[in-house]
Amino acid sequence: MRRLATRREPGFVLLEGPRVLAEAEAAGLELELLAVREGEEFTARSDQRVALSPGVFRAVTQTVTPRGVIAIARIREPDARAALEAARRRRWPLVVLDGVQDPGNVGAICRTAAAAGAPALVVLEGTADPYGAKAIRASAGNVFRLIVARAGWSDLAGLNGYGAAASGGEPLAEAPLENAGMIVFGSEAHGLSRSDLKLVTVQLSEGVESLNVAAAAALILFQIRRRLAA
Amino acid sequence: MRRLATRREPGFVLLEGPRVLAEAEAAGLELELLAVREGEEFTARSDQRVALSPGVFRAVTQTVTPRGVIAIARIREPDARAALEAARRRRWPLVVLDGVQDPGNVGAICRTAAAAGAPALVVLEGTADPYGAKAIRASAGNVFRLIVARAGWSDLAGLNGYGAAASGGEPLAEAPLENAGMIVFGSEAHGLSRSDLKLVTVQLSEGVESLNVAAAAALILFQIRRRLAA
Repeated sequence: MRRLATRREPGFVLLEGPRVLAEAEAAGLELELLAVREGEEFTARSDQRVALSPGVFRAVTQTVTPRGVIAIARIREPDARAALEAARRRRWPLVVLDGVQDPGNVGAICRTAAAAGAPALVVLEGTADPYGAKAIRASAGNVFRLIVARAGWSDLAGLNGYGAAASGGEPLAEAPLENAGMIVFGSEAHGLSRSDLKLVTVQLSEGVESLNVAAAAALILFQIRRRLAA
Repeated sequence: MRRLATRREPGFVLLEGPRVLAEAEAAGLELELLAVREGEEFTARSDQRVALSPGVFRAVTQTVTPRGVIAIARIREPDARAALEAARRRRWPLVVLDGVQDPGNVGAICRTAAAAGAPALVVLEGTADPYGAKAIRASAGNVFRLIVARAGWSDLAGLNGYGAAASGGEPLAEAPLENAGMIVFGSEAHGLSRSDLKLVTVQLSEGVESLNVAAAAALILFQIRRRLAA
Protein backbone atom coordinates (compact mmCIF):
# COMPACT_ATOMS: atom_id res chain seq x y z
CA MET A 1 0.00 0.00 0.00
CA ARG A 2 2.88 2.36 0.63
CA ARG A 3 3.90 1.91 -2.97
CA LEU A 4 0.41 2.64 -4.26
CA ALA A 5 0.54 5.93 -2.43
CA THR A 6 3.49 7.17 -4.41
CA ARG A 7 3.32 5.32 -7.74
CA ARG A 8 -0.09 4.18 -8.83
CA GLU A 9 -0.86 0.63 -9.86
CA PRO A 10 -2.70 0.83 -13.20
CA GLY A 11 -6.39 0.12 -12.77
CA PHE A 12 -6.47 1.09 -9.09
CA VAL A 13 -6.79 4.28 -7.12
CA LEU A 14 -6.05 5.12 -3.48
CA LEU A 15 -8.90 6.96 -1.78
CA GLU A 16 -8.25 8.95 1.40
CA GLY A 17 -10.84 10.35 3.77
CA PRO A 18 -14.63 10.07 4.02
CA ARG A 19 -15.39 12.79 1.48
CA VAL A 20 -13.31 11.28 -1.31
CA LEU A 21 -14.75 7.85 -0.50
CA ALA A 22 -18.29 9.18 -0.69
CA GLU A 23 -17.65 10.67 -4.13
CA ALA A 24 -16.03 7.47 -5.36
CA GLU A 25 -18.93 5.36 -4.16
CA ALA A 26 -21.44 7.78 -5.69
CA ALA A 27 -19.60 7.34 -8.98
CA GLY A 28 -19.98 3.57 -8.69
CA LEU A 29 -16.38 2.59 -7.99
CA GLU A 30 -15.89 -0.77 -6.33
CA LEU A 31 -13.79 -0.80 -3.18
CA GLU A 32 -11.34 -3.70 -3.12
CA LEU A 33 -10.02 -2.94 0.31
CA LEU A 34 -11.24 -0.61 3.02
CA ALA A 35 -8.86 0.25 5.85
CA VAL A 36 -10.27 1.99 8.89
CA ARG A 37 -8.33 3.30 11.87
CA GLU A 38 -9.25 1.40 15.01
CA GLY A 39 -12.08 3.09 16.84
CA GLU A 40 -13.29 4.95 13.74
CA GLU A 41 -16.93 4.42 12.79
CA PHE A 42 -17.22 4.13 9.04
CA THR A 43 -19.39 2.02 6.81
CA ALA A 44 -18.94 1.41 3.11
CA ARG A 45 -19.47 -1.56 0.85
CA SER A 46 -16.18 -3.30 0.32
CA ASP A 47 -14.97 -6.80 -0.46
CA GLN A 48 -12.47 -6.63 2.34
CA ARG A 49 -12.26 -4.53 5.44
CA VAL A 50 -9.37 -4.18 7.86
CA ALA A 51 -9.02 -2.22 11.08
CA LEU A 52 -5.54 -0.78 11.62
CA SER A 53 -3.94 0.48 14.78
CA PRO A 54 -3.18 4.21 14.69
CA GLY A 55 0.55 3.61 14.08
CA VAL A 56 -0.02 1.19 11.20
CA PHE A 57 -2.66 3.50 9.77
CA ARG A 58 -0.21 6.39 9.74
CA ALA A 59 2.41 4.17 8.15
CA VAL A 60 0.25 3.35 5.14
CA THR A 61 -1.20 6.83 4.55
CA GLN A 62 0.65 9.73 3.03
CA THR A 63 -1.40 12.68 4.21
CA VAL A 64 -0.27 14.62 7.22
CA THR A 65 -3.69 14.37 8.84
CA PRO A 66 -5.34 11.24 7.45
CA ARG A 67 -9.03 11.23 8.24
CA GLY A 68 -9.23 7.70 9.61
CA VAL A 69 -10.30 5.83 6.51
CA ILE A 70 -8.65 4.89 3.23
CA ALA A 71 -9.55 2.47 0.48
CA ILE A 72 -8.24 0.91 -2.67
CA ALA A 73 -10.74 0.97 -5.51
CA ARG A 74 -10.70 -0.48 -8.97
CA ILE A 75 -11.08 2.02 -11.76
CA ARG A 76 -11.66 1.74 -15.48
CA GLU A 77 -10.12 4.86 -16.98
CA PRO A 78 -12.17 6.39 -19.78
CA ASP A 79 -10.45 6.86 -23.14
CA ALA A 80 -10.03 10.13 -25.01
CA ARG A 81 -12.93 9.32 -27.33
CA ALA A 82 -15.35 9.09 -24.39
CA ALA A 83 -14.15 12.47 -23.10
CA LEU A 84 -14.56 14.14 -26.49
CA GLU A 85 -17.99 12.62 -26.92
CA ALA A 86 -19.15 13.81 -23.48
CA ALA A 87 -17.93 17.36 -24.16
CA ARG A 88 -19.62 17.45 -27.56
CA ARG A 89 -22.90 16.08 -26.22
CA ARG A 90 -23.06 18.64 -23.42
CA ARG A 91 -21.79 21.46 -25.66
CA TRP A 92 -19.04 22.33 -23.25
CA PRO A 93 -15.44 22.97 -24.34
CA LEU A 94 -13.23 19.99 -23.53
CA VAL A 95 -10.84 20.95 -20.71
CA VAL A 96 -7.27 20.04 -21.70
CA LEU A 97 -4.27 20.01 -19.34
CA ASP A 98 -1.02 20.34 -21.25
CA GLY A 99 1.92 19.62 -18.97
CA VAL A 100 0.41 20.75 -15.65
CA GLN A 101 2.97 19.03 -13.45
CA ASP A 102 1.73 19.70 -9.95
CA PRO A 103 -0.82 17.09 -8.84
CA GLY A 104 -2.38 19.62 -6.46
CA ASN A 105 -3.13 21.90 -9.41
CA VAL A 106 -4.45 19.01 -11.51
CA GLY A 107 -6.81 18.00 -8.70
CA ALA A 108 -7.87 21.59 -8.04
CA ILE A 109 -8.72 22.06 -11.72
CA CYS A 110 -10.76 18.84 -11.73
CA ARG A 111 -12.70 20.14 -8.72
CA THR A 112 -13.30 23.53 -10.31
CA ALA A 113 -14.24 21.98 -13.66
CA ALA A 114 -16.87 19.79 -11.97
CA ALA A 115 -18.18 22.81 -10.05
CA ALA A 116 -18.43 24.83 -13.26
CA GLY A 117 -20.36 22.03 -14.95
CA ALA A 118 -17.70 20.84 -17.40
CA PRO A 119 -18.36 17.22 -18.34
CA ALA A 120 -14.92 16.12 -19.46
CA LEU A 121 -11.21 16.76 -19.13
CA VAL A 122 -8.16 15.23 -20.78
CA VAL A 123 -4.54 15.27 -19.69
CA LEU A 124 -1.69 15.32 -22.19
CA GLU A 125 1.77 13.89 -21.66
CA GLY A 126 3.74 15.66 -18.95
CA THR A 127 0.65 16.29 -16.82
CA ALA A 128 0.45 14.80 -13.32
CA ASP A 129 -1.73 11.69 -13.00
CA PRO A 130 -5.28 12.90 -12.24
CA TYR A 131 -5.95 9.55 -10.55
CA GLY A 132 -2.89 9.80 -8.31
CA ALA A 133 -3.58 10.06 -4.58
CA LYS A 134 -2.59 13.71 -4.22
CA ALA A 135 -4.63 14.84 -7.22
CA ILE A 136 -7.68 12.92 -6.00
CA ARG A 137 -7.34 14.54 -2.58
CA ALA A 138 -7.00 18.00 -4.13
CA SER A 139 -10.11 17.36 -6.23
CA ALA A 140 -12.03 16.40 -3.05
CA GLY A 141 -13.14 13.36 -5.04
CA ASN A 142 -14.69 15.47 -7.79
CA VAL A 143 -12.43 13.86 -10.38
CA PHE A 144 -15.01 11.03 -10.34
CA ARG A 145 -17.77 13.42 -11.48
CA LEU A 146 -15.97 14.07 -14.75
CA ILE A 147 -14.90 11.93 -17.67
CA VAL A 148 -11.13 12.23 -17.22
CA ALA A 149 -8.88 10.60 -19.81
CA ARG A 150 -5.33 10.61 -21.05
CA ALA A 151 -4.93 11.91 -24.60
CA GLY A 152 -2.42 13.08 -27.18
CA TRP A 153 -2.79 16.06 -29.52
CA SER A 154 -3.66 13.60 -32.30
CA ASP A 155 -6.78 12.54 -30.39
CA LEU A 156 -7.88 16.18 -30.40
CA ALA A 157 -7.34 16.78 -34.13
CA GLY A 158 -10.08 18.97 -35.56
CA LEU A 159 -10.98 20.56 -32.23
CA ASN A 160 -10.73 24.33 -32.36
CA GLY A 161 -10.08 26.08 -29.15
CA TYR A 162 -8.26 28.47 -26.94
CA GLY A 163 -5.14 28.20 -24.85
CA ALA A 164 -4.80 30.21 -21.64
CA ALA A 165 -1.82 32.57 -21.80
CA ALA A 166 -0.43 34.91 -19.14
CA SER A 167 -0.30 37.72 -21.68
CA GLY A 168 -1.05 38.58 -25.28
CA GLY A 169 -4.35 36.75 -25.71
CA GLU A 170 -7.89 38.01 -26.24
CA PRO A 171 -9.26 39.43 -22.97
CA LEU A 172 -11.33 36.88 -21.08
CA ALA A 173 -14.43 39.09 -21.22
CA GLU A 174 -14.33 39.14 -25.02
CA ALA A 175 -13.19 35.69 -26.15
CA PRO A 176 -16.15 33.52 -27.26
CA LEU A 177 -14.94 30.56 -25.23
CA GLU A 178 -18.37 29.03 -24.91
CA ASN A 179 -18.25 28.12 -28.62
CA ALA A 180 -14.75 26.62 -28.46
CA GLY A 181 -14.11 22.92 -28.84
CA MET A 182 -11.47 22.95 -26.12
CA ILE A 183 -9.75 25.18 -23.58
CA VAL A 184 -6.12 24.32 -22.93
CA PHE A 185 -4.14 25.05 -19.75
CA GLY A 186 -0.37 24.72 -20.03
CA SER A 187 2.51 24.23 -17.66
CA GLU A 188 3.42 27.14 -15.39
CA ALA A 189 7.08 26.77 -16.27
CA HIS A 190 6.85 26.07 -20.00
CA GLY A 191 3.45 27.31 -21.15
CA LEU A 192 1.58 25.59 -23.98
CA SER A 193 3.23 22.90 -26.07
CA ARG A 194 1.51 24.15 -29.26
CA SER A 195 1.81 27.57 -30.80
CA ASP A 196 -1.16 27.47 -33.18
CA LEU A 197 -3.93 27.96 -30.63
CA LYS A 198 -5.94 31.12 -30.23
CA LEU A 199 -5.10 32.61 -26.83
CA VAL A 200 -7.18 34.00 -23.99
CA THR A 201 -5.71 36.10 -21.19
CA VAL A 202 -7.00 37.12 -17.79
CA GLN A 203 -6.15 40.81 -17.37
CA LEU A 204 -4.08 41.29 -14.23
CA SER A 205 -3.17 44.24 -12.11
CA GLU A 206 -0.05 46.02 -13.37
CA GLY A 207 3.24 44.35 -12.50
CA VAL A 208 1.79 40.95 -11.58
CA GLU A 209 3.26 38.40 -13.96
CA SER A 210 0.74 35.60 -13.89
CA LEU A 211 -1.89 33.68 -11.98
CA ASN A 212 -1.51 30.21 -10.62
CA VAL A 213 -2.88 27.83 -13.28
CA ALA A 214 -5.68 26.63 -10.99
CA ALA A 215 -6.80 30.22 -10.32
CA ALA A 216 -6.72 31.00 -14.05
CA ALA A 217 -8.77 27.86 -14.70
CA ALA A 218 -11.35 28.89 -12.10
CA LEU A 219 -11.83 32.29 -13.75
CA ILE A 220 -11.97 30.90 -17.28
CA LEU A 221 -14.22 27.90 -16.57
CA PHE A 222 -16.72 29.98 -14.59
CA GLN A 223 -16.77 32.54 -17.40
CA ILE A 224 -17.77 29.70 -19.74
CA ARG A 225 -20.41 28.60 -17.21
CA ARG A 226 -21.87 32.12 -17.10
CA ARG A 227 -21.95 32.42 -20.87
CA LEU A 228 -23.59 29.04 -21.35
CA ALA A 229 -26.24 29.90 -18.75
CA ALA A 230 -27.00 33.28 -20.34
CA MET B 1 18.67 27.41 8.07
CA ARG B 2 16.88 24.10 8.19
CA ARG B 3 14.91 25.39 11.13
CA LEU B 4 13.95 28.60 9.36
CA ALA B 5 12.50 26.48 6.59
CA THR B 6 9.96 24.87 8.87
CA ARG B 7 9.41 27.36 11.69
CA ARG B 8 10.00 30.98 10.90
CA GLU B 9 12.22 33.23 12.91
CA PRO B 10 10.24 36.40 13.66
CA GLY B 11 11.46 39.29 11.52
CA PHE B 12 12.96 37.08 8.83
CA VAL B 13 11.70 35.27 5.76
CA LEU B 14 13.17 32.48 3.65
CA LEU B 15 13.07 33.24 -0.07
CA GLU B 16 13.39 30.41 -2.58
CA GLY B 17 14.01 30.72 -6.30
CA PRO B 18 14.81 33.63 -8.59
CA ARG B 19 11.21 34.75 -9.06
CA VAL B 20 10.47 35.10 -5.35
CA LEU B 21 13.81 36.86 -4.86
CA ALA B 22 13.05 39.33 -7.63
CA GLU B 23 9.70 40.22 -6.05
CA ALA B 24 11.27 40.60 -2.62
CA GLU B 25 14.00 42.89 -3.97
CA ALA B 26 11.44 44.93 -5.89
CA ALA B 27 9.58 45.37 -2.61
CA GLY B 28 12.75 46.69 -1.00
CA LEU B 29 13.55 43.78 1.32
CA GLU B 30 17.14 43.55 2.47
CA LEU B 31 18.87 40.23 1.94
CA GLU B 32 20.91 39.16 4.96
CA LEU B 33 22.25 36.03 3.35
CA LEU B 34 22.21 34.82 -0.23
CA ALA B 35 22.99 31.16 -0.87
CA VAL B 36 23.64 30.10 -4.45
CA ARG B 37 24.22 26.57 -5.70
CA GLU B 38 27.74 26.20 -7.07
CA GLY B 39 27.84 26.91 -10.77
CA GLU B 40 24.63 28.96 -10.72
CA GLU B 41 24.83 32.50 -12.08
CA PHE B 42 22.80 34.84 -9.91
CA THR B 43 23.35 38.37 -8.79
CA ALA B 44 21.54 40.18 -6.03
CA ARG B 45 22.54 42.74 -3.46
CA SER B 46 23.23 40.98 -0.20
CA ASP B 47 25.37 41.52 2.86
CA GLN B 48 26.68 37.99 2.68
CA ARG B 49 26.88 35.53 -0.14
CA VAL B 50 27.78 31.84 0.02
CA ALA B 51 28.16 29.22 -2.69
CA LEU B 52 26.97 25.77 -1.64
CA SER B 53 27.73 22.41 -3.19
CA PRO B 54 24.64 20.74 -4.68
CA GLY B 55 24.34 18.33 -1.73
CA VAL B 56 24.55 21.05 0.91
CA PHE B 57 22.17 23.19 -1.11
CA ARG B 58 19.59 20.38 -1.16
CA ALA B 59 20.10 19.87 2.56
CA VAL B 60 19.12 23.44 3.43
CA THR B 61 16.20 23.82 1.01
CA GLN B 62 12.81 22.30 1.46
CA THR B 63 11.44 22.36 -2.07
CA VAL B 64 11.63 19.24 -4.19
CA THR B 65 13.17 21.13 -7.08
CA PRO B 66 14.96 24.14 -5.59
CA ARG B 67 15.86 26.62 -8.28
CA GLY B 68 19.47 27.13 -7.31
CA VAL B 69 19.17 30.21 -5.14
CA ILE B 70 17.74 30.99 -1.72
CA ALA B 71 18.05 33.91 0.64
CA ILE B 72 17.22 35.07 4.10
CA ALA B 73 15.70 38.52 4.21
CA ARG B 74 14.74 40.81 7.02
CA ILE B 75 11.11 41.84 7.04
CA ARG B 76 9.12 44.37 9.01
CA GLU B 77 5.59 43.03 9.15
CA PRO B 78 2.90 45.66 8.71
CA ASP B 79 0.30 45.96 11.44
CA ALA B 80 -3.45 45.64 11.04
CA ARG B 81 -3.93 49.40 11.05
CA ALA B 82 -1.67 49.80 7.99
CA ALA B 83 -3.65 47.12 6.14
CA LEU B 84 -6.99 48.75 6.97
CA GLU B 85 -5.70 52.14 5.94
CA ALA B 86 -4.40 50.83 2.59
CA ALA B 87 -7.72 49.15 1.83
CA ARG B 88 -9.70 52.26 2.71
CA ARG B 89 -7.42 54.53 0.69
CA ARG B 90 -7.71 52.37 -2.43
CA ARG B 91 -11.44 51.72 -1.87
CA TRP B 92 -10.97 47.99 -2.05
CA PRO B 93 -12.52 45.57 0.44
CA LEU B 94 -9.93 44.31 2.90
CA VAL B 95 -9.22 40.63 2.21
CA VAL B 96 -9.50 38.63 5.46
CA LEU B 97 -8.36 35.03 5.93
CA ASP B 98 -10.14 33.41 8.86
CA GLY B 99 -8.52 30.07 9.70
CA VAL B 100 -7.22 29.14 6.24
CA GLN B 101 -4.80 26.48 7.45
CA ASP B 102 -3.06 25.36 4.30
CA PRO B 103 -0.05 27.58 3.51
CA GLY B 104 -0.42 26.74 -0.19
CA ASN B 105 -3.92 28.22 -0.16
CA VAL B 106 -2.78 31.27 1.81
CA GLY B 107 -0.01 31.91 -0.73
CA ALA B 108 -2.32 31.29 -3.68
CA ILE B 109 -4.84 33.79 -2.31
CA CYS B 110 -2.09 36.39 -1.82
CA ARG B 111 -1.06 35.88 -5.45
CA THR B 112 -4.63 36.17 -6.72
CA ALA B 113 -5.35 39.19 -4.52
CA ALA B 114 -2.32 41.01 -5.92
CA ALA B 115 -3.37 40.08 -9.46
CA ALA B 116 -6.88 41.37 -8.83
CA GLY B 117 -5.51 44.66 -7.52
CA ALA B 118 -6.36 44.26 -3.84
CA PRO B 119 -4.03 46.42 -1.75
CA ALA B 120 -4.23 44.64 1.61
CA LEU B 121 -4.93 41.36 3.34
CA VAL B 122 -5.07 40.33 6.98
CA VAL B 123 -4.84 36.89 8.53
CA LEU B 124 -6.70 35.97 11.69
CA GLU B 125 -5.64 33.42 14.26
CA GLY B 126 -5.60 29.86 12.92
CA THR B 127 -4.45 30.95 9.48
CA ALA B 128 -1.13 29.68 8.11
CA ASP B 129 1.73 32.18 8.27
CA PRO B 130 1.65 34.19 5.02
CA TYR B 131 5.38 34.83 5.43
CA GLY B 132 6.22 31.15 5.84
CA ALA B 133 8.37 29.61 3.13
CA LYS B 134 5.60 27.51 1.56
CA ALA B 135 3.11 30.39 1.45
CA ILE B 136 5.70 32.71 -0.08
CA ARG B 137 6.48 30.10 -2.75
CA ALA B 138 2.78 29.61 -3.49
CA SER B 139 2.35 33.37 -3.82
CA ALA B 140 5.24 33.46 -6.32
CA GLY B 141 6.54 36.34 -4.22
CA ASN B 142 3.37 38.40 -4.70
CA VAL B 143 2.82 38.50 -0.94
CA PHE B 144 5.35 41.38 -1.01
CA ARG B 145 3.09 43.41 -3.34
CA LEU B 146 0.38 43.57 -0.67
CA ILE B 147 0.15 44.97 2.82
CA VAL B 148 -0.22 41.66 4.71
CA ALA B 149 -0.76 41.78 8.47
CA ARG B 150 -1.93 39.68 11.37
CA ALA B 151 -5.17 40.85 12.97
CA GLY B 152 -7.94 39.92 15.34
CA TRP B 153 -11.65 40.55 14.87
CA SER B 154 -11.35 43.47 17.29
CA ASP B 155 -8.99 45.23 14.84
CA LEU B 156 -11.74 44.98 12.23
CA ALA B 157 -14.53 46.37 14.39
CA GLY B 158 -16.83 48.60 12.39
CA LEU B 159 -15.94 47.04 9.03
CA ASN B 160 -19.00 45.76 7.25
CA GLY B 161 -18.49 42.98 4.84
CA TYR B 162 -19.20 39.62 3.37
CA GLY B 163 -18.08 36.13 4.19
CA ALA B 164 -17.72 33.52 1.45
CA ALA B 165 -19.98 30.53 2.11
CA ALA B 166 -20.36 27.30 0.14
CA SER B 167 -24.13 27.69 0.18
CA GLY B 168 -26.92 29.94 1.35
CA GLY B 169 -25.39 33.34 0.59
CA GLU B 170 -26.30 36.01 -1.94
CA PRO B 171 -25.29 34.89 -5.44
CA LEU B 172 -21.89 36.29 -6.44
CA ALA B 173 -23.39 38.11 -9.43
CA GLU B 174 -25.77 40.05 -7.18
CA ALA B 175 -23.86 40.83 -3.99
CA PRO B 176 -22.50 44.43 -3.97
CA LEU B 177 -19.07 43.30 -2.83
CA GLU B 178 -17.30 46.30 -4.29
CA ASN B 179 -18.86 48.47 -1.58
CA ALA B 180 -17.98 46.11 1.28
CA GLY B 181 -15.38 46.96 3.89
CA MET B 182 -14.04 43.42 3.91
CA ILE B 183 -14.41 40.02 2.26
CA VAL B 184 -13.72 37.07 4.57
CA PHE B 185 -12.59 33.58 3.54
CA GLY B 186 -12.93 30.86 6.16
CA SER B 187 -11.40 27.49 6.80
CA GLU B 188 -12.40 24.66 4.47
CA ALA B 189 -13.06 22.39 7.41
CA HIS B 190 -14.76 24.77 9.82
CA GLY B 191 -16.07 27.68 7.75
CA LEU B 192 -16.23 31.18 9.17
CA SER B 193 -15.57 31.85 12.87
CA ARG B 194 -18.31 34.53 13.01
CA SER B 195 -21.96 34.07 12.24
CA ASP B 196 -23.01 37.71 11.87
CA LEU B 197 -21.53 38.38 8.43
CA LYS B 198 -23.56 38.75 5.27
CA LEU B 199 -22.73 35.83 3.00
CA VAL B 200 -21.86 35.49 -0.65
CA THR B 201 -21.96 32.18 -2.51
CA VAL B 202 -20.55 31.05 -5.83
CA GLN B 203 -23.27 29.01 -7.54
CA LEU B 204 -21.96 25.55 -8.37
CA SER B 205 -23.07 22.77 -10.63
CA GLU B 206 -25.58 20.48 -8.93
CA GLY B 207 -24.11 17.93 -6.55
CA VAL B 208 -20.73 19.62 -6.15
CA GLU B 209 -20.33 20.55 -2.50
CA SER B 210 -17.82 23.35 -2.56
CA LEU B 211 -14.87 24.97 -4.24
CA ASN B 212 -11.34 25.02 -2.94
CA VAL B 213 -10.97 28.27 -0.96
CA ALA B 214 -8.30 29.59 -3.34
CA ALA B 215 -10.60 29.00 -6.34
CA ALA B 216 -13.50 30.71 -4.55
CA ALA B 217 -11.21 33.63 -3.73
CA ALA B 218 -10.14 33.95 -7.38
CA LEU B 219 -13.77 34.16 -8.54
CA ILE B 220 -14.82 36.60 -5.82
CA LEU B 221 -11.78 38.90 -5.99
CA PHE B 222 -11.92 39.14 -9.77
CA GLN B 223 -15.64 39.91 -9.56
CA ILE B 224 -14.73 42.83 -7.29
CA ARG B 225 -12.03 43.88 -9.78
CA ARG B 226 -14.57 43.88 -12.64
CA ARG B 227 -17.11 45.88 -10.67
CA LEU B 228 -14.57 48.47 -9.53
CA ALA B 229 -13.36 48.88 -13.13
CA ALA B 230 -16.87 49.29 -14.48
